[in-house]
Amino acid sequence: MLRGIIRGHIVSTRKQESLVGSKFMEVEIMKNGELTGEFIIAVDSVGAGIGETVLITTGSSARLALRNTNAPCDAVIVGIVD
Amino acid sequence: MLRGIIRGHIVSTRKQESLVGSKFMEVEIMKNGELTGEFIIAVDSVGAGIGETVLITTGSSARLALRNTNAPCDAVIVGIVD
Amino acid sequence: MLRGIIRGHIVSTRKQESLVGSKFMEVEIMKNGELTGEFIIAVDSVGAGIGETVLITTGSSARLALRNTNAPCDAVIVGIVD
Amino acid sequence: MLRGIIRGHIVSTRKQESLVGSKFMEVEIMKNGELTGEFIIAVDSVGAGIGETVLITTGSSARLALRNTNAPCDAVIVGIVD
Amino acid sequence: MLRGIIRGHIVSTRKQESLVGSKFMEVEIMKNGELTGEFIIAVDSVGAGIGETVLITTGSSARLALRNTNAPCDAVIVGIVD
Repeated sequence: MLRGIIRGHIVSTRKQESLVGSKFMEVEIMKNGELTGEFIIAVDSVGAGIGETVLITTGSSARLALRNTNAPCDAVIVGIVD
Repeated sequence: MLRGIIRGHIVSTRKQESLVGSKFMEVEIMKNGELTGEFIIAVDSVGAGIGETVLITTGSSARLALRNTNAPCDAVIVGIVD
Repeated sequence: MLRGIIRGHIVSTRKQESLVGSKFMEVEIMKNGELTGEFIIAVDSVGAGIGETVLITTGSSARLALRNTNAPCDAVIVGIVD
Repeated sequence: MLRGIIRGHIVSTRKQESLVGSKFMEVEIMKNGELTGEFIIAVDSVGAGIGETVLITTGSSARLALRNTNAPCDAVIVGIVD
Repeated sequence: MLRGIIRGHIVSTRKQESLVGSKFMEVEIMKNGELTGEFIIAVDSVGAGIGETVLITTGSSARLALRNTNAPCDAVIVGIVD
């Protein structure tokens, strides 16, 4: 998994029906507690907000965190780091 | 997911039968709103056109956005960013 | 997907039985029409030859382009670019 | 798979229910026995501790090492290097 | 797939039960016939040894080359290059 800080929220009105209701967050990836300048867009599944440090799961495993496990999504925020 | 701007359209006449009718778009990837010079080729599923900013899902999850979920495709445009 | 130019052909006599008959091509990856110096090895599924520009699907989706969808293969040439 | 040294432990109280009880380790990746400064977060499945050198499996295969193979996890520590 | 040269053998006594009997090889990746200094750890499925040039399949497809297709493994040596 990846750790990162939520930097923003991306709005997409025209999208796949199975993604309606998904909140797309842009997350800056950290390594060993330091920011990297690399970013990923992930769907929130835990009620995380901008500025929070989160854990992200990528790939096909990410979908298991969504209510609709058939949504075409490859990255999900699965936890908030204390 | 990735965010990017559609830069072009790739034409392939000889291809896998299950990909006939797919529109292959070349997309320049952005991070945090800035262009990166990195590119990916994704099949459009939302009617996006050149110059539009889009969301892309990669990996096996991408196929869930296609009509034929058995098409050998690893990247799909799943939304247009407002 | 990736776009690239086929640079060579790799021969492997001792290999997994389910890969017998597969043609392994070494492909130089392009981005936005320019060569990158990066390479990937992909199994051909469309009769492509050295020097041709092709589309490659990677990951588990790649196998859907093969006759034997249980072959341990993670990259397949799925189209020839016009 | 990847080889690396466990550098720390990440605590996440608010997380996906299926990840409750998972121990998230931050691992510095090695190549050819040397440290790289690259990091990955992986769930422990073998009782590994900080400072140990471990093997990590990534992607959807990682979940096969967990008790709950439906947990949204993409990296698991599957062995301790002697 | 990737091509590379086997550089070493990694021993892990404490590991996931489904990986018992797996031979973990550290492989230096090549591109276009040249060494890159990048490494991956892959399970051997074809009886390859140190110094041999091999083909590696990664991701969930890799498991299809193993006897136990439920082993948590993400990279397998599937062929020896002639």
